[in-house]
Amino acid sequence: MSDTTGSSTRPYDQLLESLRQADVLRSVTGLLSWDQETMLPRRGTELRAEQVAMLSSMVHERQTNPRVGEWLSASEEDEELTSDAAIAANLREIRRNYERAVLLPPALVRELAQTTTLAVQAWREARERSDFPAFAPWLERIVRLSRSQAECYGGTTGDSLYDALMEGFEPGARSAEVRVVFDELRGQLTPLIRAAAESGRRPDDRLHTMRIPIERQVRFNAMVAAQIGFDMDAGRLDTSTHPFCSGIGYGDTRLTTRYREDGFPDALSSTLHEGGHGLYEQGLPKAAYPGQPLSEDASLGIHESQSRLWENMVGRSAAFWEWLLPVASRELTRELDTVSVEEAYAAMNRVEPGLIRVESDEATYNLHIMLRFDLERSLLAGDLSIADLPEAWNARMREDLGVEVPDDRRGVLQDVHWSSGLIGYFPTYTLGNLYAAQFWAAIGTEIRGLDEQVARGEFSMLLEWLRENVHRHGRRYRAGELCERITGAPLSAAPFVRYLAAKLEPVYGRP
Amino acid sequence: MSDTTGSSTRPYDQLLESLRQADVLRSVTGLLSWDQETMLPRRGTELRAEQVAMLSSMVHERQTNPRVGEWLSASEEDEELTSDAAIAANLREIRRNYERAVLLPPALVRELAQTTTLAVQAWREARERSDFPAFAPWLERIVRLSRSQAECYGGTTGDSLYDALMEGFEPGARSAEVRVVFDELRGQLTPLIRAAAESGRRPDDRLHTMRIPIERQVRFNAMVAAQIGFDMDAGRLDTSTHPFCSGIGYGDTRLTTRYREDGFPDALSSTLHEGGHGLYEQGLPKAAYPGQPLSEDASLGIHESQSRLWENMVGRSAAFWEWLLPVASRELTRELDTVSVEEAYAAMNRVEPGLIRVESDEATYNLHIMLRFDLERSLLAGDLSIADLPEAWNARMREDLGVEVPDDRRGVLQDVHWSSGLIGYFPTYTLGNLYAAQFWAAIGTEIRGLDEQVARGEFSMLLEWLRENVHRHGRRYRAGELCERITGAPLSAAPFVRYLAAKLEPVYGRP
Repeated sequence: MSDTTGSSTRPYDQLLESLRQADVLRSVTGLLSWDQETMLPRRGTELRAEQVAMLSSMVHERQTNPRVGEWLSASEEDEELTSDAAIAANLREIRRNYERAVLLPPALVRELAQTTTLAVQAWREARERSDFPAFAPWLERIVRLSRSQAECYGGTTGDSLYDALMEGFEPGARSAEVRVVFDELRGQLTPLIRAAAESGRRPDDRLHTMRIPIERQVRFNAMVAAQIGFDMDAGRLDTSTHPFCSGIGYGDTRLTTRYREDGFPDALSSTLHEGGHGLYEQGLPKAAYPGQPLSEDASLGIHESQSRLWENMVGRSAAFWEWLLPVASRELTRELDTVSVEEAYAAMNRVEPGLIRVESDEATYNLHIMLRFDLERSLLAGDLSIADLPEAWNARMREDLGVEVPDDRRGVLQDVHWSSGLIGYFPTYTLGNLYAAQFWAAIGTEIRGLDEQVARGEFSMLLEWLRENVHRHGRRYRAGELCERITGAPLSAAPFVRYLAAKLEPVYGRP
Repeated sequence: MSDTTGSSTRPYDQLLESLRQADVLRSVTGLLSWDQETMLPRRGTELRAEQVAMLSSMVHERQTNPRVGEWLSASEEDEELTSDAAIAANLREIRRNYERAVLLPPALVRELAQTTTLAVQAWREARERSDFPAFAPWLERIVRLSRSQAECYGGTTGDSLYDALMEGFEPGARSAEVRVVFDELRGQLTPLIRAAAESGRRPDDRLHTMRIPIERQVRFNAMVAAQIGFDMDAGRLDTSTHPFCSGIGYGDTRLTTRYREDGFPDALSSTLHEGGHGLYEQGLPKAAYPGQPLSEDASLGIHESQSRLWENMVGRSAAFWEWLLPVASRELTRELDTVSVEEAYAAMNRVEPGLIRVESDEATYNLHIMLRFDLERSLLAGDLSIADLPEAWNARMREDLGVEVPDDRRGVLQDVHWSSGLIGYFPTYTLGNLYAAQFWAAIGTEIRGLDEQVARGEFSMLLEWLRENVHRHGRRYRAGELCERITGAPLSAAPFVRYLAAKLEPVYGRP
C-alpha cells in the first residue's frame, strides 16, 4: 500500500488519511464478523479465524505505525488545531487510541483474534449440547489472554485489570464507580420486583402466544425498522440466533433479529433494540470524519442507551401500541383486534424473573448484568476458577432472581460475549439503561406532544432530537460529559427507577 | 504482518507460506464480492470499492514481493524439487503467476479493483432502467483499463491484446485456435437449430409454467444440491439476481440461484450448474496445497465443464427426470404427477432462439458466446466504439439468432461480466460445453450402469470419477493436457455436436 498523501501535506492530514485507511481495513473485519454470525458454513471457521487474525494484525500494525505517533505529536503542538474544540477532542481520542494500541504486542493481537473466532464456534456447539466442559478450555485461554491484555494496558491486580479492559468499551468508566451506581440501583429495584411478584396480578399472555407465520413477521419487522427511520438503502435486517447490530462502515449498517411463530413481540423488541443501535450508527458523521473518533460512538453505554430507548421507552409504551396494534392486526393477524392497548401495554411490561438475560424484563434485566459483572471480575482477578463458574452462576441466579438453572445452556453458556473475548463489556448494558432513562426524562420536557406523535407512528422529531443531541457528536464528548450536557446532571440510577416505577404502576399497582 | 517462517527454512517452504498468506487475503476479497452480489446495501458500494481496492493491492503486493522471485528461482534450481512431477507443475504455475503479477503496476491493480466494484453497481442500475448511455462511460473506462492491462502483459494489437487477457482465465488458450474450434462448432450447430425450428414440434410447456411457492423451491433446491454431493457444512445456497458460485476458500464455497414461481426448472438448472462449480471447488485439494496452483482450478473452461456436466448432461437427461419427477411431485406440486418423463425430457431440451444467454438452450447458447467473443475482441482492438456497441449487438442477434432485441436490458446490458472487468472470459463458457461433452463421452464408456444410478438418484460414482480424473489434479495439468489425459484426444467440437444431435433426436427427430 502506498500512502496517497504527499510530503507537503501537514501532519494532521497525514494522520487523518492513515486513520481512514486503517478504518477501511477495520470495516472488513466488521464484515467478517457479521458474516460469521449470519452466513458462514461450519467448516469455514478455520479459514475465517485466519482471515480475522491477519486483518486484525494489519489494522493494529497501521494503528501503531511510529509515523502515526509523529504526526500526532506534531498536530498536538499546532495551536491552530488545538484551539478548535472539535479537533482538540479528536486529537485527545486519537492519542488515547494510539497509546492503548502500542501497548499491545502484535502476537497477542493475532492470538486474541484467532482464538476468539474459533472460540465462538466452540461456544456455539457447546451451548447447543449444554456442554460446559467442552467450552471450558476455550474460556480458560480467553481469560488468560484477556489478563495478558489487561496487564499490557497497565492493570496489575483485581479491579485495575478489569478497568483496563472496560476502558475499551466505556472510556473513562471505573469499576469502583460503576459498583456504587449498581448498588444504588439494586437497592431500589428489589422492592419493585418484589411488589410485582406479590401483587398477584399476571398480565394476559395472549400477545406472547398467538402464532404468526414467520415470513409475515419478517416483512412486518422490516416495515417497523424503516418506520422509526432506519435507512434500508444503507443497511439490512437479517435473521440470526442472537440479534445484533453491526456498524460495518459508511452506508453499511446491518441489523439482525430472530423469529418464533409464537413470539412476535420478542422479534419486534429485538428489531427496535438493534434498530436503535442502527440509527445511532447511521447518525454518526462517518462521511465527514472517516475513521476518526469524531465519528465513533461515545461509548458502548451510550450505544446501548440508543437501543434501549427505542426498545423500551418507545416500544413498550402505550402510545406505541396505540399506533402498532391496528397496523399489526392488518399485517400479522386479525386476532390482534381482540387485544386492547391496555392489555398490550401490560403484556409488554410483565415483570418476571427468568433464566435468560435477553428475554428478561426491564427490571430484572439489570440483575442479570450485575451477576455477570461480579463473576467476570472474579474470573479475571483469579478469585474464581473456570471449573467453579457454573456453580457460582447458578448460586447467584438462585440468590438474586430466585430461579433454578436447569442446565448450562440456559445458564452460564447463554451469552456469546466471553467466547468473543468481551470481558468488561456487560456493565455497559446497565449503564445504557440508565443513560436511556435519563435522556428520556430530558426528551419528555423538550419534545411537546411526543406521545401523540408516537401514537400516530411519527418518530421523526424524536430521531431528530437524538441526531442533534447524541449522534452527531460522535466521541467528541465522553459518555459522562455528554450526559451532563444533555440532562444537566451526572449519571444516576434515579431517573431509571422513577421511569420504571411509573411504568409498572398501571400493571402492578403502587409498590 | 511478520513472516512466520524462520531463516533456516528452505526457500520452497518460504515460498509456499507466502502463497498461503496471500491466499488468505485473497479469500477475503472473494467474500467481499460474494457479499456485494447478495447482501450489500446500495449505499455501501463506495466503501466496498475502497475495501476491494485496498485488499487487491495488498494481495498484489504480496504476489510481487521480490523475495517471492528469489525463493522461486532458488526452488527452480533445486533438483530434488523439480524431479517431483507435481512440485514441478506447481513451480511452473507459480512462475507464470509471478511473471504476470510483476508486469502490473500497483496503481493499475488498485484502479481496476475500485472501478469495477463501482461499475458493477452502475451496470445494475443502468440495466434496471435499460439505460445504456448511463453505463457507457463506465464501460469506456473498463475497456481502457483492460487495454492497459493487456499491454502490461505484452499484448500489442488485435488478438495479442485479447490473448493476454484470456490467458488470465484460460491458461494457454489463444484466440486464433479458439476461433477454429468455434467456427467448426457454428457450422455444425446451424443445421441442428434449423432442424428444430423446421420440425414444427413444440414441447409441452407445462413444466415451465406451473406455479410453485418459492419457499418450497428453496428447500427443494437445497435438497438437490446436497443429493449430488455438495457439502452444505462447507457451503451455502442463496438467492441472487444472477446465479453464481464463489469458491471463497477451504470450507467455504457459496452457490446462488434465482427463483420464479412459474419457473422451477430454471432455478433447478441454475442450482445444478452452480452446484457443479461448487463440487469442483470442494473437490480441489485446498487443505493439502493451500494457496498453491496444485489446488487451483485448471482453467475456467474446465470449471465450466463441471457446471455444464451437472446442469446439462445430468440435469437434462431422461434418467435424471425419472428420479426427480416423483420426488418433485412430493416436495413441489402434485401437478407433476401428470407429466411423463418423456414430456419432462422434451421440455428440458427445447431448442428456441431467445434474447437471454443464461436462459438459452444448449444449442443456441454457444451462438450467444460467439457473439460476445467477437464483439469484445473488436472493442479491445478499438475496431468498435462503445457508442456503436448496442447496434452491433442487435445486428448480430438478428443475424445469428433471428431475434429482434427490444431494449438494451435484454440486449447488451444483460451480463455482469464487462462491468466486472472480465473481458476475455466469455469464450471459456463454450470451451466448457465442449470439454463437458468430451468428458461425458469418456464417462459413458467408463462407468457401467450410470443411467440406472442417476435414475435412482445416485450420483456418487459420477462424482467419484470427477474427483479422481479432474478435481484432485487442480492446475497440475493445463486444460488441453487434462483433456488428452482423460479422453485420449485434444479438444474438439465433435463430441458436443454428437451429444447434442443424439439428445435432440427424441424431441425434434433426425435433422
